[in-house]
Amino acid sequence: MAAMVECVPNFSEGRSRAAVDEIVAAICAQAGVRLLDVSLDADHNRSVVTFVGPAEAVGAAAIAGAGAAAKVIDLRTHQGEHPRMGATDVIPFIPLGGTTMAECVSLSRHVAEELWARHRIPSYLYEESAASPGRRNLATLRKGQFEGLSEQVPRNPDLRPDVGEARVHPSAGITAVGARHPLIAFNVNLATTDLEVAKAIAREVRESTGGFPAVKAMGFALAERGLVQVSMNMTRFEVTGLHTVFDAIARKAQERNIAVVGSEIVGLVPMDALVDVAAASLKLERFDRSQVLERRLL
Amino acid sequence: MAAMVECVPNFSEGRSRAAVDEIVAAICAQAGVRLLDVSLDADHNRSVVTFVGPAEAVGAAAIAGAGAAAKVIDLRTHQGEHPRMGATDVIPFIPLGGTTMAECVSLSRHVAEELWARHRIPSYLYEESAASPGRRNLATLRKGQFEGLSEQVPRNPDLRPDVGEARVHPSAGITAVGARHPLIAFNVNLATTDLEVAKAIAREVRESTGGFPAVKAMGFALAERGLVQVSMNMTRFEVTGLHTVFDAIARKAQERNIAVVGSEIVGLVPMDALVDVAAASLKLERFDRSQVLERRLL
Repeated sequence: MAAMVECVPNFSEGRSRAAVDEIVAAICAQAGVRLLDVSLDADHNRSVVTFVGPAEAVGAAAIAGAGAAAKVIDLRTHQGEHPRMGATDVIPFIPLGGTTMAECVSLSRHVAEELWARHRIPSYLYEESAASPGRRNLATLRKGQFEGLSEQVPRNPDLRPDVGEARVHPSAGITAVGARHPLIAFNVNLATTDLEVAKAIAREVRESTGGFPAVKAMGFALAERGLVQVSMNMTRFEVTGLHTVFDAIARKAQERNIAVVGSEIVGLVPMDALVDVAAASLKLERFDRSQVLERRLL
Repeated sequence: MAAMVECVPNFSEGRSRAAVDEIVAAICAQAGVRLLDVSLDADHNRSVVTFVGPAEAVGAAAIAGAGAAAKVIDLRTHQGEHPRMGATDVIPFIPLGGTTMAECVSLSRHVAEELWARHRIPSYLYEESAASPGRRNLATLRKGQFEGLSEQVPRNPDLRPDVGEARVHPSAGITAVGARHPLIAFNVNLATTDLEVAKAIAREVRESTGGFPAVKAMGFALAERGLVQVSMNMTRFEVTGLHTVFDAIARKAQERNIAVVGSEIVGLVPMDALVDVAAASLKLERFDRSQVLERRLL
């Protein structure tokens, strides 16, 4: 079967529904692509489109979407809270089912080359597609934003695009294209109103302060429910699984005599992340993910 | 997307690889169908073919397979340990992903009608497709086997086929066609050599002796590993989930001071059965199976 891929491009337009519709129409015009979600954020003046399909179709749709975005978005007049450097700001490709990361890396390179060939939009290859460690992190790449990069890219060899010449597209800027692991928004709710508890446990479980690898965490109050929440981004569920942090949080809460009320997954979750949870909780022996029937259909 | 369906027909031939290959070739000739498994059992003189695909293609493949089986199998000379009444003994259709049981029931009726129209093979509609409670159970329907039914069907109105006239095909017999829930072979291993423990816990968890609905269970010794096993068939994971019996067995073992070593799933398992385990073990709130990304691709 074809390698199935998810693509979640971010476009620098979150106020004009008509403009975003035009981009989405270009994406959906590609046969084989299925649109899963479109969300606009007016404050950020940014939109996120989610679609899936076979690698080749998803790549063609991403190129078409970026072409449409270059027509309807002019960064010279763009304002919004979220940092951005391109009309199509970032194009991540995420492997699904049996698709490998290598296939998504190769797809990202192909798409970056086409963005230059067809639209004269240069690209940075980021995350798993990065040619060097300094190119992995999207926030670092986007630091100068559209205005700074327009000035600096032609002069500073450190900022040279990975694909395309050393100049930013006059109105569409520069795009980050790359393969990445799926990201899961996972929250655990605790039966207390003491926000400090959620903040302390968040510090204990997140990677940046010595916790689990591939876990980002913050503590929030859920005032209406009279609870607090450890809110997480799980950036590699295969390195740190949902059950691992859930169990750790439950234990840390228990030590403080606080119960876990429940947890929630916001948005989409890859099947394998839940299969891993099930395998751990049933102590499955000799289990192979290929035993999951639906996996054979992807 | 098309309604995805699994089909697991059983054919009364488990010794001649060439004959089974001919049946499998007829099934695979149908575009859109994917073959997952073929297994032959010489003692039972019976083979089981597993394939999946969109409902229409799976139906056409099942009809073609039954046509080939009628050519290569003659029940008048068939011998084997397993009870059987048809060259194609049973054709179960199992809903996958978002497919409904009603769609599989309707598919089973269509296939039964075509078996009669094209091959003059009559059918009983069983399990979820059964027109009356007495027709649900396959073992009951198959009681007289090919020889008994060939004699009795024309005479006994109680044995009248659901589709086709009141006579059994002279060499291909009569087929059971129906929609059913997926079946999961799930075993839990206990750290003891005392077989009585496994047998007692099996009795406590299985439906027939007052345990959980839709659970069949037996106790076995795993002599080589020095363990015993509660071996189960979970016939409706949506009624009784894997986590429910696993937790109950762990508790019952604990009461006897015996640890659960682990569990195993034999063969295939539907994604949703494991998603349900994960949702329970993470105490997921407001979770909907449609949040599983791959579900949207089926």
